[in-house]
Amino acid sequence: MTHPGQQLGPIGVLGGTGPLGRGLAVRFGQAGIPVVLGSRSSGRAEEAAAGIGIDGVTGADNATAAQCPIVCVTVPYEGHADLLTELADPLTGRLVIDCVNPLGFDKRGPYPLRPQAGSAAEEAAALLPGSRVVAAFHHLSAELLNDPDVTDLGCDVLVLGEDRDDVGVAVELAERLPGVTALYGGRLRNAGQVEAFTANLIAINRRYRARAGVRITGLPELTS
Amino acid sequence: MTHPGQQLGPIGVLGGTGPLGRGLAVRFGQAGIPVVLGSRSSGRAEEAAAGIGIDGVTGADNATAAQCPIVCVTVPYEGHADLLTELADPLTGRLVIDCVNPLGFDKRGPYPLRPQAGSAAEEAAALLPGSRVVAAFHHLSAELLNDPDVTDLGCDVLVLGEDRDDVGVAVELAERLPGVTALYGGRLRNAGQVEAFTANLIAINRRYRARAGVRITGLPELTS
Repeated sequence: MTHPGQQLGPIGVLGGTGPLGRGLAVRFGQAGIPVVLGSRSSGRAEEAAAGIGIDGVTGADNATAAQCPIVCVTVPYEGHADLLTELADPLTGRLVIDCVNPLGFDKRGPYPLRPQAGSAAEEAAALLPGSRVVAAFHHLSAELLNDPDVTDLGCDVLVLGEDRDDVGVAVELAERLPGVTALYGGRLRNAGQVEAFTANLIAINRRYRARAGVRITGLPELTS
Repeated sequence: MTHPGQQLGPIGVLGGTGPLGRGLAVRFGQAGIPVVLGSRSSGRAEEAAAGIGIDGVTGADNATAAQCPIVCVTVPYEGHADLLTELADPLTGRLVIDCVNPLGFDKRGPYPLRPQAGSAAEEAAALLPGSRVVAAFHHLSAELLNDPDVTDLGCDVLVLGEDRDDVGVAVELAERLPGVTALYGGRLRNAGQVEAFTANLIAINRRYRARAGVRITGLPELTS
């Protein structure tokens, strides 16, 4: 359910200079949503925002981006726990959307890292007791997001979380992306396999030269 | 790539009296593929096969069904390891398609059981060193398979495995199901999240009153 007139954001994007973070910033910006693209270095963040060249997409350090009411976490899994520990204070009271896929790579391709907490999202929830944590945007191809020729992403976004209202906000945000249908995908304890499934999409990309995403079939009606 | 004239099967279905096993037997049978529906008790298997009422779908005990060249494993996860240990001998030399989703259920809904081996499929591969093991059919709605009004399943089947030829046979078998596109979904070490993702589909079914399945988007061309 999208309400084009409604104010969403500003959205902070932690790790916004990486491919997924940048891609989300581009698409949110194009949808008219203000974005604070965050990075360890505010200089690099400002540079990346300038490169995007959309009014309303600005750069800042991660701690500043973390003060937005909605914050997407798009850092590599290696830095995930440390960054969230460091930003627990500014993230208090925020809706944190964890987008992290804990994957390893070796010569046989990608594989899931299986975090101790069950998922990156559950790890985030444990590290951020003062934040509302949901998980989303795992299966979006960063390549598609960053391709200016792509005007229809043509895929679904699964949102996982414990609270219906928080899930609803993330669903609404996701549906501002062109061609995306967003839906509830289960509780946080079911986030691990959603994150890890990105390894399968990468395997599919390699085998079929694809830019794979996911659609859920068999829904009576997607959204009203 | 399907070759309608080509002989596939007979297919053994271990646990063929359960909803997924029965549904696969129905659809393979309708596609003209001989099926030996297996169960602990040959009497119950024969009864289930008679209930399906398709020539070429017969019932037998699991040990007999395990002698088919292609064997689908559709038992509940609780009985998975014991059954395969018991049938390792008749399953030697067979292509074993593991379809098992290791899920638990409590009042909050479904959740992944996280097998020690990483997945039911990897557990099967470890228990069946003389068999060729792939994994597939996890996301097919048993309800859709068993609904005689459904003539188009409208979803994809991901096949996971180590050997390209074995994956190819399972892809071909899956594409005999009406409205199914099958594709390689990664190596066996990426089967765990595919199995567990069924918990998300069940969560989606409950929230949206759906019979959810999966389609992969972003493929340059699905099959030739």
